[in-house]
Amino acid sequence: MKNIAGAPGTVTGLILRVIQCCFAAGSIVAMSTSRHFYYVTAFCYLIASMSLQVIWSSTLASLDAYSIAQKKIIHNHFVVSFFVVGDWVIATLSLAAAASSAGITVLYFSDLGDCGLNADCAKFELAVALAFMSWITIAISSLIMFWILAAN
Amino acid sequence: MKNIAGAPGTVTGLILRVIQCCFAAGSIVAMSTSRHFYYVTAFCYLIASMSLQVIWSSTLASLDAYSIAQKKIIHNHFVVSFFVVGDWVIATLSLAAAASSAGITVLYFSDLGDCGLNADCAKFELAVALAFMSWITIAISSLIMFWILAAN
Repeated sequence: MKNIAGAPGTVTGLILRVIQCCFAAGSIVAMSTSRHFYYVTAFCYLIASMSLQVIWSSTLASLDAYSIAQKKIIHNHFVVSFFVVGDWVIATLSLAAAASSAGITVLYFSDLGDCGLNADCAKFELAVALAFMSWITIAISSLIMFWILAAN
Repeated sequence: MKNIAGAPGTVTGLILRVIQCCFAAGSIVAMSTSRHFYYVTAFCYLIASMSLQVIWSSTLASLDAYSIAQKKIIHNHFVVSFFVVGDWVIATLSLAAAASSAGITVLYFSDLGDCGLNADCAKFELAVALAFMSWITIAISSLIMFWILAAN
């Protein structure tokens, strides 16, 4: 399990988790510093979903760091199963949050032809872009975890 | 491979594909019979994504039916890999389409407190609900396919 890049307890796994945290935290900051975001359910859901991702990824990053420091590999089948389920749930929620916010951003800034909540245009776009990037990184983790579980 | 429910060339696999087709086709009909859907990019994207799912699922349903009729199991590694990639791409597109349309539906019918495109409220909600159900069924197929590929 140690040889697969991105597996729990490896340096690549730790890097992936840290990147996920950074993107998700960036998305939260961009969205929550905009005015009026709380009027739109999808934007609130984006913040909730990204917060969940920060908690999940930072917990797993800490576990990875501890494993690397202790030179112990996490290969307990039950623990990996738990990581797989958690990763898939978080990845699905992240994609749904990013897509629903993207739908509304496109509606306001392209379909309706104006920037309804104008000062915050760039912040909404940035939050959505960061949410999609955080989804891509957690999707990679999820695939690696599922592969490890299925192949063992 | 034959013993895993939902594997290509099995009756459960065929049933899953047919259900995917029905939900996706229902979503297309509900959305395309509404007026004004073409003003919203996310609604057009929903139709495009569901159309892709109908084409993909009906093709695989035909292959499953052929396999069952011929009593031949599809266990070519290259073919299964192709199914896995296809399933994941379609599942991701379906979830993104359903979520973006759901975000706009919630915005119009809940956040803004009125039903802006009023006669079509129920049709939009139905299209989104069917799209989510079609995503759930293709997600099940994707997980089964990925499991088969990883476990062989």
